[in-house]
Amino acid sequence: MMRHFLSIKDYTKEELLEIIDLAMYIKKEFKNERTDHLEDKTLGMIFEKSSTRTRVSFEVGMYQLGGHALFLSSKDIQLGRGEPMKDTARVLSRMVDMVMIRTFSHEKLEEFAKYSSVPVINGLTDNFHPVQIMADFLTMKEKGLNENSSVAWIGDGNNMANSWLMFASIVGLDFRIASPVGYEIPKEWQDIAQENAKKSGAKITFTNDPNEACRDADVVTTDVWASMGQEEEQKIREKAFAEFTVTKEMMNLTNNGIFMHCLPVHREEEVTEEVFEEHADTVFDEAENRLHAQKGIMVWLDRQRSK
Amino acid sequence: MMRHFLSIKDYTKEELLEIIDLAMYIKKEFKNERTDHLEDKTLGMIFEKSSTRTRVSFEVGMYQLGGHALFLSSKDIQLGRGEPMKDTARVLSRMVDMVMIRTFSHEKLEEFAKYSSVPVINGLTDNFHPVQIMADFLTMKEKGLNENSSVAWIGDGNNMANSWLMFASIVGLDFRIASPVGYEIPKEWQDIAQENAKKSGAKITFTNDPNEACRDADVVTTDVWASMGQEEEQKIREKAFAEFTVTKEMMNLTNNGIFMHCLPVHREEEVTEEVFEEHADTVFDEAENRLHAQKGIMVWLDRQRSK
Amino acid sequence: MMRHFLSIKDYTKEELLEIIDLAMYIKKEFKNERTDHLEDKTLGMIFEKSSTRTRVSFEVGMYQLGGHALFLSSKDIQLGRGEPMKDTARVLSRMVDMVMIRTFSHEKLEEFAKYSSVPVINGLTDNFHPVQIMADFLTMKEKGLNENSSVAWIGDGNNMANSWLMFASIVGLDFRIASPVGYEIPKEWQDIAQENAKKSGAKITFTNDPNEACRDADVVTTDVWASMGQEEEQKIREKAFAEFTVTKEMMNLTNNGIFMHCLPVHREEEVTEEVFEEHADTVFDEAENRLHAQKGIMVWLDRQRSK
Repeated sequence: MMRHFLSIKDYTKEELLEIIDLAMYIKKEFKNERTDHLEDKTLGMIFEKSSTRTRVSFEVGMYQLGGHALFLSSKDIQLGRGEPMKDTARVLSRMVDMVMIRTFSHEKLEEFAKYSSVPVINGLTDNFHPVQIMADFLTMKEKGLNENSSVAWIGDGNNMANSWLMFASIVGLDFRIASPVGYEIPKEWQDIAQENAKKSGAKITFTNDPNEACRDADVVTTDVWASMGQEEEQKIREKAFAEFTVTKEMMNLTNNGIFMHCLPVHREEEVTEEVFEEHADTVFDEAENRLHAQKGIMVWLDRQRSK
Repeated sequence: MMRHFLSIKDYTKEELLEIIDLAMYIKKEFKNERTDHLEDKTLGMIFEKSSTRTRVSFEVGMYQLGGHALFLSSKDIQLGRGEPMKDTARVLSRMVDMVMIRTFSHEKLEEFAKYSSVPVINGLTDNFHPVQIMADFLTMKEKGLNENSSVAWIGDGNNMANSWLMFASIVGLDFRIASPVGYEIPKEWQDIAQENAKKSGAKITFTNDPNEACRDADVVTTDVWASMGQEEEQKIREKAFAEFTVTKEMMNLTNNGIFMHCLPVHREEEVTEEVFEEHADTVFDEAENRLHAQKGIMVWLDRQRSK
Repeated sequence: MMRHFLSIKDYTKEELLEIIDLAMYIKKEFKNERTDHLEDKTLGMIFEKSSTRTRVSFEVGMYQLGGHALFLSSKDIQLGRGEPMKDTARVLSRMVDMVMIRTFSHEKLEEFAKYSSVPVINGLTDNFHPVQIMADFLTMKEKGLNENSSVAWIGDGNNMANSWLMFASIVGLDFRIASPVGYEIPKEWQDIAQENAKKSGAKITFTNDPNEACRDADVVTTDVWASMGQEEEQKIREKAFAEFTVTKEMMNLTNNGIFMHCLPVHREEEVTEEVFEEHADTVFDEAENRLHAQKGIMVWLDRQRSK
């Protein structure tokens, strides 16, 4: 049965962990050599918003799995302009075997997926960033952590936070999110997460106190204060987030916790240079794991089709 | 002997049908797997005008034939700017095995081809779109039609119409083209076509009445009223083309005809939503056939070199 | 031990000649077929300044060596914007096996290389263009010349001239550079070159007289008068360089010399149409040799890593 990878909430705990295991297996078994998992397959990558990390990790990943990725920038393709999305989706999915879309509107992504005859992967929308979360949890596993660990998200209730919340509530993490007043995760997602948690046994904590979130945490993670497109809000946000810089003091509250960051980092804003560079090995492992996690996702999606 | 694929008129009936047969063979025999027809070969794709469909079909096609396509946008290369075309042609053809060019001026394409030491393929010019016609005829063949069938072109006497006319007059189709007054195919091409028809037995009809063109036709096809770059004429054209929307009523005049469209489509302009969606399977087969037809063309051109 | 290829001056005579020999070997042994020298390897190509020749030669070269090159334009990645160079270098070098950078500032390139865990190749900076020199010397070797030959550079003391000077002074050429007053190679590089020459036996001549440089030379080479970004100076330069057009008369002074040009050429500025077209075969061999020289460089760098 064909599946898309649009957001974490569409997946069960078992499926998410299965994808992570598959990614770890491919990373370990085929380090430094190509495999034939997606031999002869093509991935169309649509970027309405440019991104080096997503671009390189998908293109290299596809190549290392034996396939080929096509880079389509906003200059080459504009979803919904020129022709209705449903036509673009129907044409493209006749020519390629899988599609990755990085766009602003999550609804656009969902509409494309609705008309696509091949699996569609979310490469980032304004609402969710599920492939990054998969890379993050893969990194946790490699550091000896698992679905019983505790993760503190410090900062904005943005697309990364949404995806973390969904992931945590489904797989059963002890997840604490500390956001400034006014920058919390939308109530809608909070409610869904609490509902998920009842089933999974996850412990979800919403707070405005970063220290509370960090206490005994296994992982501390954060993101830039203003995402692309929010630069004009920068000044206002700097004030609101002033107490949300991840410092050595916060890290000292944790359970010898690791620090993660999806990059790019703004030093001395969301994290001090000191904390960042002390944990740089983890952060760059995490960056590299975009490659491996996405390989897991692509191979998993491909396997579903023949089931 | 080295051949280019610049326009249909440079080819004989036998050659055109041979390429179509080759495309059908490759499509059938190697569905879903790579072949080694163009193993180790590279295709330089020059896009002075962006196009998703042409881009994706050539890049995927080349990959599936065992080779690699390079995407060069107008940001990367501007033919005739910076250096004379003859230098660009001589350098590029030292590095790649084949070149595809999508540009405005057909003369530019021809000048490049003149100095190229490798085969050059027309990916669309203001005058001709030969690769699309090959995909269209391939689609007809798959639907049980052939060189004795009748095709009605409804609308603008543009590059697509020119190419259809050349193809039809060479292979022997019953081709009817209905254009609004003032939007007919240039007299020059009409004369060449009538000349071709004498030899091939083609029946070529020029009319201003879409109903006349559709009567008993096996295929009805059309294109947008205003192409890229003609948007300012849109209002004038809407008036001129008002009677040239392909409707259910027109389709009812045909010989149980199929509807084709090279996309993108403007619903309720050149065709009604109803007709388009009723024939959507054919139209998206036709879109996919760009991939297959172009494989046939590339492999055929490659084979000529070793003859 | 990991090596970068940032400028000629970082290399010994033995290393430079070894790379040229490797390039010649690969060109000869694997003409028209792919090799597995860089099988499964990826090259990230960062272009802050666009360039067809560099782009196509690296992308085709990597493909023909069994690997894959990723094209990252200034729209996709801007070094030093958005995130510090050291972060970009650390992320990218986790995902690809080699990086090629074409940028303006040589310092930027060096900073990237400092933090990169994979080899970095200079694809052109404002100071140096080492890959072009390797292609040029490879062309000389194919024409029966060698490190004892004499080369006349006529024109601007630009990045190409700098790289020629470094190469010549290290391998031992008789190198004469004739530049207009005020457009000479920076004193700094002149001094380094004279220092190198003491060791290598190179003969380095700086002059303002193009005829003197050409006398008995085996090679005459030049470059455009105004590089990209210097167009506003065009008028001033045209005056200064008026006597520096390579003419038939100059070529007659040489030792039956060949003419080389890194392209694009401005006919009747730095060289007459007559001289250029008479030596066109050599010039386009030289252009093609970008492909072969760069293969040699990439394979050589890859081999160093396992030493």
